[in-house]
Amino acid sequence: MGKKVLVIGAVALGSKAACRLKRLEPDAEVLLMDQDEHISYGGCGIPYYVSGDVADASALQSTSFHMLRDERFFKDCKDIDVMTRTRVTTIDRKAKRVEILKSDGTSAWLSYDKLVIGTGSRVRDLKIPGQELAGVFSVGSLRDAIQIKAAIASGQVGTAVVVGAGFIGLEMAEALADMWGIETTVIEIADQIMPGFVGPEMAKMAQTHMEAKGVTFRLRQSVIRLEGEAGQVTGVVTEKESFDADLVILAAGIVPNGELAAAAGLEVGFNGGIVVDAHMRTEDPDIYAGGDCVLVPNAITGKPGYYPLGSLSNRQGRVIGDNLAGKDSVSPPVVGSFVVKLFDVCLCGAGLTLKKALEEGFDAISVRMCQLDRAHFYPTKELMYLELVVDRSTRQVLGIQGVGSKGDATVGRINAVAALLSRKPRVEDISNLELAYSPPFSSAMDIVNALGNVADNLLDGRMHPIGCEVFAETWEKIEKGEVCLIDCRARADAKVYEEKYPGIWKGIPQDELLRRMDELPKDKPIVLICNTGVRSYEAQLNLRAMGHTDNVTVFGGVAMLKHWGMDI
Amino acid sequence: MGKKVLVIGAVALGSKAACRLKRLEPDAEVLLMDQDEHISYGGCGIPYYVSGDVADASALQSTSFHMLRDERFFKDCKDIDVMTRTRVTTIDRKAKRVEILKSDGTSAWLSYDKLVIGTGSRVRDLKIPGQELAGVFSVGSLRDAIQIKAAIASGQVGTAVVVGAGFIGLEMAEALADMWGIETTVIEIADQIMPGFVGPEMAKMAQTHMEAKGVTFRLRQSVIRLEGEAGQVTGVVTEKESFDADLVILAAGIVPNGELAAAAGLEVGFNGGIVVDAHMRTEDPDIYAGGDCVLVPNAITGKPGYYPLGSLSNRQGRVIGDNLAGKDSVSPPVVGSFVVKLFDVCLCGAGLTLKKALEEGFDAISVRMCQLDRAHFYPTKELMYLELVVDRSTRQVLGIQGVGSKGDATVGRINAVAALLSRKPRVEDISNLELAYSPPFSSAMDIVNALGNVADNLLDGRMHPIGCEVFAETWEKIEKGEVCLIDCRARADAKVYEEKYPGIWKGIPQDELLRRMDELPKDKPIVLICNTGVRSYEAQLNLRAMGHTDNVTVFGGVAMLKHWGMDI
Repeated sequence: MGKKVLVIGAVALGSKAACRLKRLEPDAEVLLMDQDEHISYGGCGIPYYVSGDVADASALQSTSFHMLRDERFFKDCKDIDVMTRTRVTTIDRKAKRVEILKSDGTSAWLSYDKLVIGTGSRVRDLKIPGQELAGVFSVGSLRDAIQIKAAIASGQVGTAVVVGAGFIGLEMAEALADMWGIETTVIEIADQIMPGFVGPEMAKMAQTHMEAKGVTFRLRQSVIRLEGEAGQVTGVVTEKESFDADLVILAAGIVPNGELAAAAGLEVGFNGGIVVDAHMRTEDPDIYAGGDCVLVPNAITGKPGYYPLGSLSNRQGRVIGDNLAGKDSVSPPVVGSFVVKLFDVCLCGAGLTLKKALEEGFDAISVRMCQLDRAHFYPTKELMYLELVVDRSTRQVLGIQGVGSKGDATVGRINAVAALLSRKPRVEDISNLELAYSPPFSSAMDIVNALGNVADNLLDGRMHPIGCEVFAETWEKIEKGEVCLIDCRARADAKVYEEKYPGIWKGIPQDELLRRMDELPKDKPIVLICNTGVRSYEAQLNLRAMGHTDNVTVFGGVAMLKHWGMDI
Repeated sequence: MGKKVLVIGAVALGSKAACRLKRLEPDAEVLLMDQDEHISYGGCGIPYYVSGDVADASALQSTSFHMLRDERFFKDCKDIDVMTRTRVTTIDRKAKRVEILKSDGTSAWLSYDKLVIGTGSRVRDLKIPGQELAGVFSVGSLRDAIQIKAAIASGQVGTAVVVGAGFIGLEMAEALADMWGIETTVIEIADQIMPGFVGPEMAKMAQTHMEAKGVTFRLRQSVIRLEGEAGQVTGVVTEKESFDADLVILAAGIVPNGELAAAAGLEVGFNGGIVVDAHMRTEDPDIYAGGDCVLVPNAITGKPGYYPLGSLSNRQGRVIGDNLAGKDSVSPPVVGSFVVKLFDVCLCGAGLTLKKALEEGFDAISVRMCQLDRAHFYPTKELMYLELVVDRSTRQVLGIQGVGSKGDATVGRINAVAALLSRKPRVEDISNLELAYSPPFSSAMDIVNALGNVADNLLDGRMHPIGCEVFAETWEKIEKGEVCLIDCRARADAKVYEEKYPGIWKGIPQDELLRRMDELPKDKPIVLICNTGVRSYEAQLNLRAMGHTDNVTVFGGVAMLKHWGMDI
């Protein structure tokens, strides 16, 4: 008989570790335990089950060849034993055994040679008065999802409030609003959606899109209490407003289930996540941990971070399986690549946001831009919006985020940069990144290369841009005539705006600028704008070559401002 | 006055170098020369102009904001002088001057401080008797494209032959067959399409798709002569067959225009391409060259290679512009990322093919696989097919190629691996590559990670696979009963094939295999198959754990065989 391995938690990490070990060591004796009845399901698919894109919950728990990954599957296909509805209550490291508590109330001690902790995460408990009311859900498990869908399908839900504008909150908001026509409001305590994942401009672009699709947002508000009648939720009260709600989804972040490990004396970190080494081993050489219950180093900062991502859990599970079998596999530090579909756009990124980079002590700046995602002459092109975070002094690229309506194309760009992020790429590496080119897929100078070029121009002091937020702040001064706005596009493009904003919006095509210098005000700052920022940059260089330095250009131009939500 | 820079060739490389220089040094005096009347156009867009996707040739020569990049554009927007229909006939390096010949027959000498050679490439002259006939075209310039489209639009073209199954040949075949309904045959001298770019299995998959769309292929044939009547082409004759043809496109590769540089004593390499250093400088410190007329090092072999890619030309042009302005910019070695759209699939890759890797002395193998491009429970998933080329001894990843019907998704995967290729990634880096995960975009274990895992399993000796070609060769032995075929899928999936091939195709679901071992033949090799290769691998491990070693599994399973074109 081979070694005896107990695996606590049978969703992504645990199942993968168990299966990989059995493939390497067929004689290993593996027992997979989970407190739930559902195991080995794709948790990230829950919003698509709620929306109806996935008709049946069992699809999330099935293989691509339609086999339900239940106890029988693991036994027959993988020779792995499974206990569901079984909670591990104690780890006795000295005796190398765990105590289990079954749903029927019985308990027992099981011994192990090696132990894997894949206890996952839970939805953060906001401790909101009223959260126990019927109709209030979190999205922590497939069981929750089945209950939510049942509630919606009953036809009694006309209004919903989602608390938290992270991944799950936004995906659930889409599911509710898009497929079920529920009037949905998202309440977020931060000043943007997806805080920590993208910067404020990319966030606002995605939010604007969701608003156009009918979702209401309330930022900078926190929920004080939930109201109900006869035990059923009826409303949500923040410090500023009240909202009707037949359904409330609590999705304000998740926390690692590290308590079991901590109680066994294993080290846990800043948020209670278990500390592991590169081999996914805890400080106890016989205990591995991974997935949503651990902390792993960030590839850019080197510091422990919390990355509850289903894909990472799967890869870590394989590494644990390797190491259980005596291989020497490591799970590399994490750049945190992510993507979320929000109606018709995808929002994605990897590495650090500007805010995070600054907090980490980098001398960071970010550049934003937009460009067509394929050749401008190709029929199906769309504008894509990217942000690159770089360190000014070393020119190291620290992160990238993006928004685009062609999701595969957008996330493909992020993935290409993400692949490099842990290897300390410099801006030049992005300028020269070899993205495959053909007009149906990209531009000869792909947006990623152009993004690197913009960063290069800014770092070298050639480009002096402002972003959407600063432009919006400056707009009042423009209207008052304190700042001069020059539209560098062709006459026909600028004309619409000149007529809409007479005396304020002035068109001088870039190619006429040098011979029309006398039309520029001598004593006012100038904001140069065009459609996407290419010609206004050229105009800025023209002006600066003539000694005019009190001018700025606008990242991404009119296209970006509009997409961001500015009504110009 | 700033330095005087002459630029020979005004398509991608030359225009970009000139514009970049002027942005860095507004006072530089830049003259851009081209022998053609059309300049600064997107040559890779030509097939889309011929197909009609791009209605007007001028769109290929316009900026994304619809300005025609003609002489006036360069003068007014960029302060760059342009001479079209001007050929440089001599470079006098000693005197730092060039002799030009204008279309009106006049000539002159122009002096330079710095010279840029961007003379591009030309279609290889096959010297086929009859190639001077009307209706015979190459696709070397926008002028050629305009003539081809005019010929097609005249309505006189019912049949066409394309000579050469590389990028341009295949794109032109699609344009002719798809949009114009022309009966199109592609003749290729090699034994596969896209030789040098993808391996034979990926090539065959793309070819099978194009055949289903109505294009005819003749491989391993070369054109002996073209036939005509009254000066108009009527047919194509190979050593084996004759074909009617109202139109012939010669697209059998391109060669660098390095003669001008060579005549000036500058070093040229194996195919006449100009030798440059990492700064894109020739051996003459005052002469730069780039784009389709140069050789640059391959990032994996370190050896000079020829990469006539529009995107690379643009990036190299920017590097030259930098260096002309005194910056210290380098163009990194090339991995050769490419993509081509062929009707509804895209074929793409980067790095070395297996064949090339073996030629270069690597101890190379390749693994092929297919997997869904997004979560299997997500509605819009499609199968994607990838091949990874790795060095057995070092586990270094040398190349990747792929075919998929969701083009952006497929090329996105290639780009992510391509980003790493020059940094000597190992198989483990692919297994752990952080591709952003969400069910609408990827799987929790993305196909790229799974591809790395397959390579790992093969290199470790756990997986013993055969590919489509070997399976097809083995099929006769299977039919004769010399080799036993076991279908490891669920009963219902295998049943269709058991009924189609009675006594030959035997279904034993993987989860029943261990208890049905006695049904396996004792004295015959076994081929294990399933839908995509996952369960047959599991079955192989099961058998080998029981001591049965005379078995192989099939890369990508039935799905791959069918897509490859095997009629099973």
